[in-house]
Amino acid sequence: MKTRSIELADANKSSSTPKSVMNRGASILDFILRVVAFIGTLGSAIAMGTTNETLPFFTQFIRFRAQYNDLPTFTFFVVANGIVGAYMLLSLPVSIFNIVRSSAKNTRILLVVFDTAMLALLTAGASAAAAIIYLAHTGNVKANWLAICQQQFNSFCERISASLIGSFVGMAVLVLLILLSAVALSRRK
Amino acid sequence: MKTRSIELADANKSSSTPKSVMNRGASILDFILRVVAFIGTLGSAIAMGTTNETLPFFTQFIRFRAQYNDLPTFTFFVVANGIVGAYMLLSLPVSIFNIVRSSAKNTRILLVVFDTAMLALLTAGASAAAAIIYLAHTGNVKANWLAICQQQFNSFCERISASLIGSFVGMAVLVLLILLSAVALSRRK
Repeated sequence: MKTRSIELADANKSSSTPKSVMNRGASILDFILRVVAFIGTLGSAIAMGTTNETLPFFTQFIRFRAQYNDLPTFTFFVVANGIVGAYMLLSLPVSIFNIVRSSAKNTRILLVVFDTAMLALLTAGASAAAAIIYLAHTGNVKANWLAICQQQFNSFCERISASLIGSFVGMAVLVLLILLSAVALSRRK
Repeated sequence: MKTRSIELADANKSSSTPKSVMNRGASILDFILRVVAFIGTLGSAIAMGTTNETLPFFTQFIRFRAQYNDLPTFTFFVVANGIVGAYMLLSLPVSIFNIVRSSAKNTRILLVVFDTAMLALLTAGASAAAAIIYLAHTGNVKANWLAICQQQFNSFCERISASLIGSFVGMAVLVLLILLSAVALSRRK
């Protein structure tokens, strides 16, 4: 069985790399990407979750203090990033299992299922937050919503904008992970 | 080769259905789901894109007319739904090709790649729009943003809320499509 797969790889690709080694390489890349996504989403959740700014003066607004949970969308952002970060951590043992057993099929399908769900969750959280942050920066004249980031809350606004980066890195990594899994599944002997 | 795969299917599943027939069934389901997603996203794009309401009286707001492109997020929503809808239409011939040749591999990977990208795009558009629509309905006291849907623009607000449905159907279908492709790729002989 093993020798035939090596022959097939030779015949198809005219290279000396056997399929199982290529699948193992893909699994190691999978593991590294999961660590990157874990760091990115956790960083985003912490950056957003610990944001608050107290102004030293009165403004035309009623409040003096800006916190992430003033806006429900940011709470969703923190929760979504927390869930995806936790999932990334929990998926690391499965990823290690895939490195050890490069012909595993069911665990790869399991990972695709959850990766896809997590991609949808993370994208939803990140883009909802991005829409609100854009509104906070520019406001909207037609809806009579003022930009809260023009004069006040500079540090708050910079921090919530920066916290998006980790989320978007996580999204890109999840897209790559799904593609890697699909290719690995198709290559499985 | 074919008889062996049938034997394998028998041994694994103790059923008389050969793998190629199961893959063909999955491909037909894939085709149907793509048609559903096409209708859903196109419906969303049209419902949002044609929304406008002119009020017959003055309000505390400056404008008299609400249109989807008053808010850039809704423009992005229409564009994202349009792109995903067009992609769904264009992917139908590839899906038919997969029905005819149930052991095709490269076309399935191609579909997974684009399905994943489209899932991210559609989720981004739909959740950004959902965040803004939520804000339009409830407003936000802390940021001093008033709810524009409380008294005025009832028909506008109802229509933009309803236009989310097609998008979320499209998202669910895309998640199913990615999973179907992953399973079909793993089953391919």
